[in-house]
Amino acid sequence: MPNNPVLNHHISSQFNEDLQDVNTKFMTMGGLVEQQVANGIHALLDTDASLAIDVQFQDNIVNRLETEIDEALTLILARRHPAAIDLRMVIAMSKANTDLERIGDEAAKIARIAQNLCEEGSSPRGYMETRHIGNQVRVMIHDALDAFARLDVDQALRVLLADADIDREYQSATRTLMTYMIEDPRHISRVINVLWVLRSLERIGDHARNISEQVIYMVKGLDVRHTSVKEIEEKVQER
Amino acid sequence: MPNNPVLNHHISSQFNEDLQDVNTKFMTMGGLVEQQVANGIHALLDTDASLAIDVQFQDNIVNRLETEIDEALTLILARRHPAAIDLRMVIAMSKANTDLERIGDEAAKIARIAQNLCEEGSSPRGYMETRHIGNQVRVMIHDALDAFARLDVDQALRVLLADADIDREYQSATRTLMTYMIEDPRHISRVINVLWVLRSLERIGDHARNISEQVIYMVKGLDVRHTSVKEIEEKVQER
Repeated sequence: MPNNPVLNHHISSQFNEDLQDVNTKFMTMGGLVEQQVANGIHALLDTDASLAIDVQFQDNIVNRLETEIDEALTLILARRHPAAIDLRMVIAMSKANTDLERIGDEAAKIARIAQNLCEEGSSPRGYMETRHIGNQVRVMIHDALDAFARLDVDQALRVLLADADIDREYQSATRTLMTYMIEDPRHISRVINVLWVLRSLERIGDHARNISEQVIYMVKGLDVRHTSVKEIEEKVQER
Repeated sequence: MPNNPVLNHHISSQFNEDLQDVNTKFMTMGGLVEQQVANGIHALLDTDASLAIDVQFQDNIVNRLETEIDEALTLILARRHPAAIDLRMVIAMSKANTDLERIGDEAAKIARIAQNLCEEGSSPRGYMETRHIGNQVRVMIHDALDAFARLDVDQALRVLLADADIDREYQSATRTLMTYMIEDPRHISRVINVLWVLRSLERIGDHARNISEQVIYMVKGLDVRHTSVKEIEEKVQER
């Protein structure tokens, strides 16, 4: 991570190494989680039952990484007493670690639904919306992690804006599917499964947003949770 | 909190005070969130639109408390360099703080749905299940916070067991409502709203479980996330 100045500015080379190690693990977990989401959606769209099973299985690896990252962060707090941006990085990574693990959970849920639909037959509607929103949240995860790696506040802000789009598209897709079910109730059970998938994608967008808020906290020392994007932009410019 | 030995064992009385202050705030937030869930469910069951609006409004107070608690915890880390159980308490509270805030979010979502159903008319089904599962998750939140306040691992374990019950009852209630919709699709939109409420309650149960896992981490130093209740019981007894 050559672009991240936090990881090599310490007098203690052991401290640098500790931070770099946990950062590498965090980025590995991020890449894995991004892939899990992509695979969960593929399993659904291509009715690929074996991929669906694989995603559910891989969730164990995500869970193990979450535990290892939290352990490493606790050791850094106990031994190195980080201050200023180092402390904020540890706190931000601890919060973002939880979000990555939850994204992994949502990917596993999507995969379980994909497996159900492989067995009981596809839904007649909702795949186009799933593909579209799915692509957008994948990009959000990628950009949020990239912002984290490069301490890039502008990139983080773009993710916050993208999340507002996702929420609108999710509402619109949900309304479309509800209308369809009311008009043709024969496939309610299958369509509701797709509704759950869309809900998971919307949640994943929220988690990518949370990670981006942590980037702003880490870099600027501002807690921007529960704040509108407009207010955040103003606050960020003041610093 | 007379039963919590962590809060007054320090040589520095300022450290004791800092921990006590943040703990008081955490418990205040816990009580508020518990009330928010209760009110959200009442608003739904009694079609009380003004209570539904009130719950959504109060979510701001929960959000503010989350921010204040995280600020206080960061200051403790920066100034006091806590170690051993003190450090674990700070970490556990930071994680549990996120869970409490998410419970508040779910309560606000339930209240928004309650408001919708006040306007478009009640669902013909699902209220009995909502009342039942709602009561159970309220008890779970209460018990998880009580376990946190008293460092009570046995109480935390009981919450984990209760969460397994909730998951089963949620599955069963969901199946019942799906069957009802397929047989009588006229009220799909209203029934789906109740499905979302049940989903929120199930998520609240998960968050109460997470808080209880943090109690076990705080007291025993064991990370028991992603572990079955049976394994957790064995591990806890070994220490």
